[in-house]
Amino acid sequence: MRHHKRIEYLAIGDELLLGLRVNAHLAWLGELLGRFGLRVEHAAEVRDTPSAIGEAFRCAWQRSDLIITTGGLGPTCDDVTKEVIANALGRGLEHDSNVESDLRDFFSRRGKTPTDNNFRQCGVIRGASALRNPNGTAPGQWLEIDGKILVMLPGPPAEMQPMFSDQVLPRLKELGWAVEGRGYLQFRTMGIGESQLAQLLDPLLLPFQNQVEMAYCAHSGVVDVRLHPCGESLNNDTAEMLLEQCRHALGDFYLGLDQPDPACWIIQQLRTRGKTLSVAESCTGGLLANRFTNICGASKVFMGAMVCYRNEAKENLLDIPSCLLEQHGAVSAECAAAMATAVAERMESDYGLSITGYAGPDGGKEPAGTVYIGFHSPYGVWSRKEIFSGNRIQVKERSVNTALNFMRLQLSTNPEKMAAI
Amino acid sequence: MRHHKRIEYLAIGDELLLGLRVNAHLAWLGELLGRFGLRVEHAAEVRDTPSAIGEAFRCAWQRSDLIITTGGLGPTCDDVTKEVIANALGRGLEHDSNVESDLRDFFSRRGKTPTDNNFRQCGVIRGASALRNPNGTAPGQWLEIDGKILVMLPGPPAEMQPMFSDQVLPRLKELGWAVEGRGYLQFRTMGIGESQLAQLLDPLLLPFQNQVEMAYCAHSGVVDVRLHPCGESLNNDTAEMLLEQCRHALGDFYLGLDQPDPACWIIQQLRTRGKTLSVAESCTGGLLANRFTNICGASKVFMGAMVCYRNEAKENLLDIPSCLLEQHGAVSAECAAAMATAVAERMESDYGLSITGYAGPDGGKEPAGTVYIGFHSPYGVWSRKEIFSGNRIQVKERSVNTALNFMRLQLSTNPEKMAAI
Repeated sequence: MRHHKRIEYLAIGDELLLGLRVNAHLAWLGELLGRFGLRVEHAAEVRDTPSAIGEAFRCAWQRSDLIITTGGLGPTCDDVTKEVIANALGRGLEHDSNVESDLRDFFSRRGKTPTDNNFRQCGVIRGASALRNPNGTAPGQWLEIDGKILVMLPGPPAEMQPMFSDQVLPRLKELGWAVEGRGYLQFRTMGIGESQLAQLLDPLLLPFQNQVEMAYCAHSGVVDVRLHPCGESLNNDTAEMLLEQCRHALGDFYLGLDQPDPACWIIQQLRTRGKTLSVAESCTGGLLANRFTNICGASKVFMGAMVCYRNEAKENLLDIPSCLLEQHGAVSAECAAAMATAVAERMESDYGLSITGYAGPDGGKEPAGTVYIGFHSPYGVWSRKEIFSGNRIQVKERSVNTALNFMRLQLSTNPEKMAAI
Repeated sequence: MRHHKRIEYLAIGDELLLGLRVNAHLAWLGELLGRFGLRVEHAAEVRDTPSAIGEAFRCAWQRSDLIITTGGLGPTCDDVTKEVIANALGRGLEHDSNVESDLRDFFSRRGKTPTDNNFRQCGVIRGASALRNPNGTAPGQWLEIDGKILVMLPGPPAEMQPMFSDQVLPRLKELGWAVEGRGYLQFRTMGIGESQLAQLLDPLLLPFQNQVEMAYCAHSGVVDVRLHPCGESLNNDTAEMLLEQCRHALGDFYLGLDQPDPACWIIQQLRTRGKTLSVAESCTGGLLANRFTNICGASKVFMGAMVCYRNEAKENLLDIPSCLLEQHGAVSAECAAAMATAVAERMESDYGLSITGYAGPDGGKEPAGTVYIGFHSPYGVWSRKEIFSGNRIQVKERSVNTALNFMRLQLSTNPEKMAAI
């Protein structure tokens, strides 16, 4: 049995401490390592001065088994990570001719010539192996000393992420540090708040109190739930059984394993069924359409959207009768339903989904945050009222997630009917 | 003259290390403190176990002047930040009756009763003053010992941010640690890459090498540039002069001080001129409309959008002639121009802005990343070709930013003409 490995991450760069950039690498690494039963125990953002890097590295190297660094491997004089760490380890740098030829290739493919600065990047700490970088000029490094591992990676995500997935993770698996199937189980819920969720799920966890921990993460109407092993790993049978109990307790609130996108699920469902969709948006102003068009292959299903932000647009483009707008208002169940049907007709799609409401900060006949969702299908029209809190951007996000969930539930409660068409 | 204050930030919570949540607090704090001449020297993400919190706190307290923590102040048994730190300082907790009455108010406004757990939150470290929390139940704490300051804040952004701005920052100003006008200068550029920017600006900085540092942050076609003082503070005259030189060198690439949103600038310009706008989108699928509708008051100017994702929609809704689509294709300068004009006509707006292209991963007659932008104004129609790299989401982002910048430049180069209408 392996012993527990202590992992520490150092993000090097003044821009992280100055607030110019959010450190998104930590979440990416934490999630990926967690899938293989590894856990980042400590992380730090470090200035790119030699003294700050040296101090942080010495402290991490002393107490941890695996140290991962990102940043400070570039060609400029600010990039000193490699030199400082080599120095802290009492090792020199050696020229790596493979890295040099990678570098020359990289520049020649772009019709450019490397400068002297770039050749500094060919230095590798004595004993380390270079991690080749097909997406940039800075190689990473992998160094093992007395059972400890140091991994240095470049800062840009487009270089760091493939280098970690393709070169670091396979080595961690080879060593038996990262193990397939030893990670956590995560699932996504929609339509239920964090506290209500805890009331439903906490009792299920009681019998496994020292085996499994549960962590929640809520964002705009979606709550992700993660089941961790407390100790070495999650027993597969226990995990499966617990997951099954959670699914059962959650019913329609359960969306799926990992982090499924409800827009993606809808596109796949409609694609399988050979159906099409269009949307009409008022207060969400394009955000719903944007979610569908983020999905590769959406164009097979998604016809388009009408963003009818002003009432004139609702009348002129969607032919919403002005008497309906006068009698019920543009923010009403009636208008939401009429928008869903009208957009489906105008775009010649099978389904229509609509949102109208007050995103805020101002409301109208009803307070800011009041939103109506409409759904048109070959079987009829539905609409539903919601009241959201938060600022304009949050109300837009929540409205879109709720509309997606509404359509998901409508599609999944009528599966036979749909399939029969 | 104050001496340089060393600031350290500890973000407490397993969810940050597990990858369930990105630590966005650091960037928020770093940016805000920077405006007042203060700099976060070191930051760490810490597990919410007593040993991890204790170790991180003792280390920070020893070497820094101001320690800010977020997280772990809630009512559950995982929330131990306050107890662990009180212990590390050798101080007990004292019941604060103001906090208790805030807590009772908070619950009674919601028609609920606090549980015993909640009353744990009324404990304040001996000698500290509570920072009241109007947006939640966990109070923050401010503690001064021998010239060092400890600030503990709750984790949720909606509670942490107002508490810091309204209660912590004013105290830091009172003590003379945070000083108005001692911060950095930041400006935004569009339409120019980071390396080209460095070529233009680096020579301007040479005469001020030991006084001013420049930091860049690039995101999807936008690059933010920050001018920092190297030492105590930025001399106002130097800063102004350098900024003026940068503006001059950048010309049209210069967008404005801080982080102006070009969509916001366009809405304000059109509002002032009493003009309206609508947009037609293909590959960006609603993202352009979403940017405009994120702005409060956009409804005065923004009529709506047509997301014509499929060619049928371009023909049926925008009446783009099928012969144009056949001859030039939907991804062409001609189609972009026709879309911009057609949407302005259909929506009865003064201006029309359009985007058509291949967001990827697949291209068509041209490679993925090829995008055409169209702009219709009362004075004519323009279109422009761009080739972007990156994945589908990045191409969408870059297309939208470039379209916004294109419209901005069109509006700002014809100001007299526009005003004369």
